[in-house]
Amino acid sequence: MKKFVAIAFVIGCLVDVQAQNQDSIFIKRIADEILMNGVAYDNLRILTKQIGARLSGSPQMVKAELWGAKALKDAGADSVWMQQCLVPHWVRGGKDEAAAWYTTGKIKDKKKLAVTALGNSVGSLKPMQATVVEVKSFDDLVKKKDQVKDKIVFYNYPFKSTFIRTDDAYSDAHAYRTNGPAEAARHGAKAVIVRSMTHTPGNDPHTGMTTYVDSLPQIPAAAIGLGDADWLSKQLQKTEVAVSLLTHGKFLPDTIGHNIIGELRGSEFPNQYIVVGGHLDSWDLAEGAHDDGAGIVQSIEVLRSFKALGYKPKRTIRFVFFANEENGGRGADKYLEDARAKKEQHLFALESDNGGFTPRGFKIKASALQKQKMWIWMSLLNDYGSYEISDGAGSDVQKLYDALGVPAGAFYPDSQRYFDVHHAKTDVFESVNKRELELGAINMAGLIYLVDKYGLPLSP
Amino acid sequence: MKKFVAIAFVIGCLVDVQAQNQDSIFIKRIADEILMNGVAYDNLRILTKQIGARLSGSPQMVKAELWGAKALKDAGADSVWMQQCLVPHWVRGGKDEAAAWYTTGKIKDKKKLAVTALGNSVGSLKPMQATVVEVKSFDDLVKKKDQVKDKIVFYNYPFKSTFIRTDDAYSDAHAYRTNGPAEAARHGAKAVIVRSMTHTPGNDPHTGMTTYVDSLPQIPAAAIGLGDADWLSKQLQKTEVAVSLLTHGKFLPDTIGHNIIGELRGSEFPNQYIVVGGHLDSWDLAEGAHDDGAGIVQSIEVLRSFKALGYKPKRTIRFVFFANEENGGRGADKYLEDARAKKEQHLFALESDNGGFTPRGFKIKASALQKQKMWIWMSLLNDYGSYEISDGAGSDVQKLYDALGVPAGAFYPDSQRYFDVHHAKTDVFESVNKRELELGAINMAGLIYLVDKYGLPLSP
Repeated sequence: MKKFVAIAFVIGCLVDVQAQNQDSIFIKRIADEILMNGVAYDNLRILTKQIGARLSGSPQMVKAELWGAKALKDAGADSVWMQQCLVPHWVRGGKDEAAAWYTTGKIKDKKKLAVTALGNSVGSLKPMQATVVEVKSFDDLVKKKDQVKDKIVFYNYPFKSTFIRTDDAYSDAHAYRTNGPAEAARHGAKAVIVRSMTHTPGNDPHTGMTTYVDSLPQIPAAAIGLGDADWLSKQLQKTEVAVSLLTHGKFLPDTIGHNIIGELRGSEFPNQYIVVGGHLDSWDLAEGAHDDGAGIVQSIEVLRSFKALGYKPKRTIRFVFFANEENGGRGADKYLEDARAKKEQHLFALESDNGGFTPRGFKIKASALQKQKMWIWMSLLNDYGSYEISDGAGSDVQKLYDALGVPAGAFYPDSQRYFDVHHAKTDVFESVNKRELELGAINMAGLIYLVDKYGLPLSP
Repeated sequence: MKKFVAIAFVIGCLVDVQAQNQDSIFIKRIADEILMNGVAYDNLRILTKQIGARLSGSPQMVKAELWGAKALKDAGADSVWMQQCLVPHWVRGGKDEAAAWYTTGKIKDKKKLAVTALGNSVGSLKPMQATVVEVKSFDDLVKKKDQVKDKIVFYNYPFKSTFIRTDDAYSDAHAYRTNGPAEAARHGAKAVIVRSMTHTPGNDPHTGMTTYVDSLPQIPAAAIGLGDADWLSKQLQKTEVAVSLLTHGKFLPDTIGHNIIGELRGSEFPNQYIVVGGHLDSWDLAEGAHDDGAGIVQSIEVLRSFKALGYKPKRTIRFVFFANEENGGRGADKYLEDARAKKEQHLFALESDNGGFTPRGFKIKASALQKQKMWIWMSLLNDYGSYEISDGAGSDVQKLYDALGVPAGAFYPDSQRYFDVHHAKTDVFESVNKRELELGAINMAGLIYLVDKYGLPLSP
């Protein structure tokens, strides 16, 4: 990567200095506008405090959609519409509970565990009791496959602190939440508890989606806090431990959701589309402030600042609030379906879904030539905190890349604090810093401006 | 700057790849050690929660010195000593109070103002009442010089949000706190209130040192919160407002303080010194967690990780906890005095005094050649968040640069949240994130390791 940085910087020095100066001046105007007159923080307060948690199918999600459409209109979109899709309607259904005890002990020795059912999991409906088998990995599960029948499998795979980018630790670990319940069911387990996907000291359980396999039984599954996971693991070194797990999750019939879309019509190439957005839904445990209220209000801020500065884009810029990212991705599926059906030419799609933290750069899925161009642009964003382009894209826009080859990406903020709050009750407005949020919007607006102005080379 | 980045990166690609790989591996080991076994966060908890605020001359400062010496010993220093110096002993002396009212109104209409006396300021001793003259700048003060006699001057210079690096906003504004009272006294004002040095919404007043001029009267001076500053400014557009200010600040006789110094003796060049440190004192309003507990515990962590990895430095590395940075700088003066008297050859001096936030890079005062070498090293620290070298140094170590030409610098973390807490009651342990703190220590250790291993070219 470093060599690429070097080459990119050198090429960066050779491009038209005049254009760079103009761009530098315009990006500074964007920054001043957002830092002096920004409404991202106020919008986030409304979305989190007045609307709150907004899982697909919830009444709050309906409120959020109406609010989002109005916010895009207020920010100056030429047109705003709601793109309808069916979304899953999973409900937690009640209070998740768990307790542990030594099988040799007495009932009064039960210890409560901090627990939250995994998203999309089936409820136990009544307390499900079994002894616990701890596994450290999928390999370990296979080794112990003859011991797990009718037991509760406890995935205790660490969220590794030695990954500097915490999203790398998440990539490394999250299969235990996503696929762990199905894999345990394959070997006859009756339920699963998973160590939460976080390195943050404390005991908050972090939820997130799990995915069953059609041919295998659907078993209850929940995440437990790190404190309790460590405690449980320690007990299991000494003795047999049983756990009682009570969850209530279930699917109601699919319901209607919407992508909320606002458009700034392009003046020169109106049929070339640039997408910038986030996802409007959140988990149910908190306010979805970083995940992904931040991405929503930053996208609005890109639009608002362009309008405030009188910027008339060459291409059509679409501000898209995707539905149902957290437990289905149906909003992104619908957006892709329509884009494909209408043969829309998408030039670039950017998502902000890594929290409202101080900027580091971007993740990009694109051809080498396209990435190279963006590396050059980074020198225009250095002053605002963006220094790097790594591989990746927001999960909603990545579908455009995978299916249609549309260059796609993600705003990449500093990752150190994300898993303090990710999918946990701590993801509230107060965990977002106003300036950090605004700087994210500045970097997003800067990149969208550059893509709009200069376009991107055709692949490769 | 960008051109310099480009050149540095290219040169970076040409240096011995073998050495870079070894260094990369060793820095990864430092990172793993600090992220897995680090004690910086635990040390910070002790320093902030068990010792707390520690202004020069306070009993807590004495406790902090003893704790610091022990912590350096525990972390494995070859020798630890306390370098004695006289420090000023300013005390707040009581509860600062202020209230404002319309001069045409009644006493019952008084509004309390959130206020804190500036460090080193004289107390009013009894409530000092006068009408207020708002000035927007020093130029504005000069224009209004005939109106301020026996009045309270209100410096309402904004801490500008449009500076991306908040320390640039501080550089731009802090003269109103540092020199404002003396300048107002020059024109006969009887007291000063200063808009706090922060952009953070809310009403917490932020203290910090002011400096009188010998030939001019010393007048009481306090900072007020942003909410009250905005309120006051608004009232003054409509009517005359009087303020009553009560402060109690005074100097007791100078007292004894110490720089706390630990040393890892160099194996090849023991008479070449590398300094890494922070300042142990803090303001009295809070726990001094970011300012500068973070720098202290990060410096200990550099030492601890070197020892844990069995690293034997070529040069002598000194871990220095400077005394009295906040309201006198006498610790740094003493360190310089001794270094000069003993003709010690200092190779480099690094301070961490910009908060325990996620890394961005370093500030450096050095020759072009020395800086160039450090730019090259940045490529080894990119993975840990360091991308940039800008101009500057910690205020304690800058004295070595100014007086002796010693290359000096500062660890430079992200600045977005620093002035949320700087010199205010919010600078507490809870405002520090464990991983961000640790990443700072990793980058500091990485740079110190590289300076120790390769040295620095002689100027220029």
